[in-house]
Amino acid sequence: FTDRDQNQALSLRYDGNVLFNERSAFQTVRIYESCAYGKMLTIDNMIMCTERDEFHYHEMLVHPALQILKEPRKVLVIGGGDGGAIREILRYPSLEKVVMVEIDELVVTAAKGFMPSLSYQFDNPKLELHIDDGIKFLERCAEGEFDAIIMDGSDPCGPAEALFSQKFFGSCRRALKPKGILATQGASPMFQESAFQELNLTLKTVFGIDDTHVLLFHAPTYPSGMWSVQLGIKGNLHPHLNFDSDHAAIFCQNHGLRYYNEQLHLAAFCLPTFVRKLIQNQ
Amino acid sequence: FTDRDQNQALSLRYDGNVLFNERSAFQTVRIYESCAYGKMLTIDNMIMCTERDEFHYHEMLVHPALQILKEPRKVLVIGGGDGGAIREILRYPSLEKVVMVEIDELVVTAAKGFMPSLSYQFDNPKLELHIDDGIKFLERCAEGEFDAIIMDGSDPCGPAEALFSQKFFGSCRRALKPKGILATQGASPMFQESAFQELNLTLKTVFGIDDTHVLLFHAPTYPSGMWSVQLGIKGNLHPHLNFDSDHAAIFCQNHGLRYYNEQLHLAAFCLPTFVRKLIQNQ
Repeated sequence: FTDRDQNQALSLRYDGNVLFNERSAFQTVRIYESCAYGKMLTIDNMIMCTERDEFHYHEMLVHPALQILKEPRKVLVIGGGDGGAIREILRYPSLEKVVMVEIDELVVTAAKGFMPSLSYQFDNPKLELHIDDGIKFLERCAEGEFDAIIMDGSDPCGPAEALFSQKFFGSCRRALKPKGILATQGASPMFQESAFQELNLTLKTVFGIDDTHVLLFHAPTYPSGMWSVQLGIKGNLHPHLNFDSDHAAIFCQNHGLRYYNEQLHLAAFCLPTFVRKLIQNQ
Repeated sequence: FTDRDQNQALSLRYDGNVLFNERSAFQTVRIYESCAYGKMLTIDNMIMCTERDEFHYHEMLVHPALQILKEPRKVLVIGGGDGGAIREILRYPSLEKVVMVEIDELVVTAAKGFMPSLSYQFDNPKLELHIDDGIKFLERCAEGEFDAIIMDGSDPCGPAEALFSQKFFGSCRRALKPKGILATQGASPMFQESAFQELNLTLKTVFGIDDTHVLLFHAPTYPSGMWSVQLGIKGNLHPHLNFDSDHAAIFCQNHGLRYYNEQLHLAAFCLPTFVRKLIQNQ
């Protein structure tokens, strides 16, 4: 299987078996059995996640934001149909409800059928699942409803572009409580340089320069392996100042996290100079 | 062009031109013109470096070690025939001499001919270049000669295996001054899990558990993109305690570094939990 653009490609060998292969109104969803990365979910021929390394992405998408909040009670997920994000969110004992809005039920069906390590929380009674358009859902949403919004969607370029507009992030900010955090997968500063910059600029416009933050992590099965999460913060909260390292250390230990830890929380926000320069003064 | 193992492959498109293609007694050295990463040096069909992202690797291999020393005077490089490591080392005003021992002159020839942004320091009078076997060179070396040894070689598995033995690192430790640092490319904890672990164990045996350190950085054109540098320290020096953040900040600014910076120096040593676990208690 090969995930490619014009100039580069990443190939993972699979054993010849395509376990799931269906087309919805939106996209083609497939699951392959790869040789080195376990089962692999692809959408329109792009790797979404593999069993072996999905924890890098899902832990770094969810925990930096929720550890700043420390005791999140109500969280909204846009996308995330594979179930990895809600799995991480439901680790918080303080959590009362997680609302997921996924536009394509087929992704949920595929994950439930073939990737139990990702999807095992779909039956959790704290989950409220809507098969719906995230944009419309947020327009109808009450003000100040969520402690956190996690955007676990496609890339900023392409069909999901409207999910990265100023208008959409404005709706997100409105739906956050007076102290709340939006975390979105933030594109690659190496592979999608301008999408990464534009998203950052949009978040700064909506949340303010001092309340927009970028972290990096290693995503071995995404092109370039260098991926970001971007945060927009509403209210007086700071990724370092409102972070309780001891609390996080115990949490990570108790839940057997495999990527995120209390040291990495601070370290992930320290960016290589060329990444810093891509987003400064904009 | 495709860099592959049994289960995965990374492909970069090139414009059809192979600029350099020769075979030495040791290996086949080629330079391609890639579409998205500039010129690309390969040895035996493995990507060694590309003009676009080589600075990630060379800055992170050299500067964490040399910033701990602050004012290195005499540095030894094993390998590094493309010239990237000596370029970074020669930025230090305190430097009196850099000795490079590269086994294959063909790599130097290729880099000098086609990759001037890497190789422009080969004529620096502070450089002493030996085309020789690093292992033999170190056996003949006087005790306590170097402030730092930078190992910029091939992977721990394969033909260069003897460069990662306890005996060889013993010779390195002997050749270091009473306060000195060895920095070696440290393999990938994702792509070469056991080589990464074995190297770490060997360094711990030679330098001691508390004086062996691992840092990670993003290497987009190496398989998995997650690469390490491992340090062995002789004498009383510590990556954090002996680090002068203000000094490093000015250095990075003055020399226009593009990856390494004073925040990243500390952050790079904070490892994801699964990487921590690979090397703890061994």
